[in-house]
Amino acid sequence: MTRIPFEVMKKEFARVFVKHGFTPARAEESAQLFAASSLDGVYSHGINRVPRFVDYIAKGYVHVDAVPTRIDGMGSIERYDGNLGPGDLNAKFCMERATAMAHASGMGVVTINNTHHWMRGGNYGWQAARAGCIGICWTNTESCMPPWGAKDAKVGNNPFVIAVPREEGPVVLDMAMSQFSYGKLQVTRLKNEMLPVDGGFDREGHLTRDPGAVEESMRILPTGFWKGSGLAILLDLVTALLAGGLSTCGIDKAKPAAEVSCYKASQIFIAFDPMLISGQDFVQQTVADAIDYLHTAIPAEKNGKVAFPGERTAKTRKENLAQGIPVNDVIWNQILGL
Amino acid sequence: MTRIPFEVMKKEFARVFVKHGFTPARAEESAQLFAASSLDGVYSHGINRVPRFVDYIAKGYVHVDAVPTRIDGMGSIERYDGNLGPGDLNAKFCMERATAMAHASGMGVVTINNTHHWMRGGNYGWQAARAGCIGICWTNTESCMPPWGAKDAKVGNNPFVIAVPREEGPVVLDMAMSQFSYGKLQVTRLKNEMLPVDGGFDREGHLTRDPGAVEESMRILPTGFWKGSGLAILLDLVTALLAGGLSTCGIDKAKPAAEVSCYKASQIFIAFDPMLISGQDFVQQTVADAIDYLHTAIPAEKNGKVAFPGERTAKTRKENLAQGIPVNDVIWNQILGL
Repeated sequence: MTRIPFEVMKKEFARVFVKHGFTPARAEESAQLFAASSLDGVYSHGINRVPRFVDYIAKGYVHVDAVPTRIDGMGSIERYDGNLGPGDLNAKFCMERATAMAHASGMGVVTINNTHHWMRGGNYGWQAARAGCIGICWTNTESCMPPWGAKDAKVGNNPFVIAVPREEGPVVLDMAMSQFSYGKLQVTRLKNEMLPVDGGFDREGHLTRDPGAVEESMRILPTGFWKGSGLAILLDLVTALLAGGLSTCGIDKAKPAAEVSCYKASQIFIAFDPMLISGQDFVQQTVADAIDYLHTAIPAEKNGKVAFPGERTAKTRKENLAQGIPVNDVIWNQILGL
Repeated sequence: MTRIPFEVMKKEFARVFVKHGFTPARAEESAQLFAASSLDGVYSHGINRVPRFVDYIAKGYVHVDAVPTRIDGMGSIERYDGNLGPGDLNAKFCMERATAMAHASGMGVVTINNTHHWMRGGNYGWQAARAGCIGICWTNTESCMPPWGAKDAKVGNNPFVIAVPREEGPVVLDMAMSQFSYGKLQVTRLKNEMLPVDGGFDREGHLTRDPGAVEESMRILPTGFWKGSGLAILLDLVTALLAGGLSTCGIDKAKPAAEVSCYKASQIFIAFDPMLISGQDFVQQTVADAIDYLHTAIPAEKNGKVAFPGERTAKTRKENLAQGIPVNDVIWNQILGL
């Protein structure tokens, strides 16, 4: 494990992206998003994902020069075709449009179809909050999780993001509909550890904390059992219907190869400008009171701390900015060789 | 247990509400919502809730004649003051406005503050779907659940509803942020049964399926552990900020008495007209394909069936319409005496 400064990592990513056909400006923009994910501790969708992203470009799945084109619009809604451009840049574009619309008239809804994996969804929540907006966005994905009561994967894990601006650091939730990702299962298994709570079913159909048993059965658990399964189904339908794009079922069928994730996904980005709607004083006071109240909760563990979503992220970011971002040497060397 | 025909139940509720000061038209409207909840199998927020609802009226918490008044509006957003009117009628009004706005320009967002418990949230999802709209709504509540990592209740269970229209019966998710309600814990304990999955912590801080142990510790479990806790925090903030109303923290402080639930709650109702946005053919085909695909999932249990959210509700409704709604005799007699 080595610690790499944020700027060094970002520069390296930008170099790789330019080499693979990005314009310097777009390479810089994408590098910023990937490096920001690692900076915030979301390594799975930061540095660890870069080799696969580059592989998709090389194979022609991701079109580096493609930008979203407007399909149509109506009232507070704008709809775009992602033209199979880089999913991170497409998503950033959409949230930018949504926040601009929110600044103008309170809210904006932007949908995109025919796009790619947006990498870390939380980035677009932080982006909305930085613009002073409430951001709500989600994406559908290919099937990767059995719906409740089933053995085989027929629903996506459809990450869902909600962000609320706050002067001292926003409140940002970034949750997938599975209790754990396959990445987390692998990491836990390699450490010979058990998951903190049940993560799926074993081959015999029993709930288990054993990550290897879940990897084997591929019966990863929806978060909240039937609830996360239901939410995944609804998030998928809403985004496909509003984006005029593919649902999970269509994504499964459109895949150009088994390993390609979120090919032609549909996404939705909603932004509200709460300052414009309710006034800055009210917004700041309400958020401050709610967070203060939450922090008065009595920790369950000695020396425990009750945190709001995004609070630990901010702490990790600060540490990683000061000390450098921890990277696996094998992956870092792989990046250097790309 | 007796089975009461839907129309008989509705008529009886309407009689009670008129007796407690409702106009006949509003009594009928509210009776329809309460009876529909029972019809759909949500007894906790249908018939079982009527005595408490009437008690709140008698104590002056719910103002039977109050209707929402418009605070302001901007673009696709309208905001209302609930004036402490009946929460069910206020919520129905808001979703009606939201769907009307959606029919006109694709989408509508309606917020309400200073309102009461909306009873069964799913009603407003079904309402949106009946109007051919995607409906998304949620409410905040008083604290009833410890945030993840805490011992004491500092977050609400903030029910979240998403509905998608479908000709043969809509897809409707109605989920609270706790894995189980206190009502479910009680019912399970009285049957001397265990919960199907962990429902909270016992006094020693261990996860347990024993409903009595959770009732004792009052450490009910957020759905998906840290995830449902985080989602509850964000849903609360968004609705308070956009409605210009109280957050959970404010609701806790505003309570006129310990047992009063959701006093001065904030709510948000979002409707999209997917037919207007994406065209009827696309909408119907996409939903049909997604549901067909889901139904191809292999059941985990022999003779099991994988259902979409709302599918079992429709089945229960059909049964209860044909055979009458099952009611506890004690509660039915209580209603007759109100």
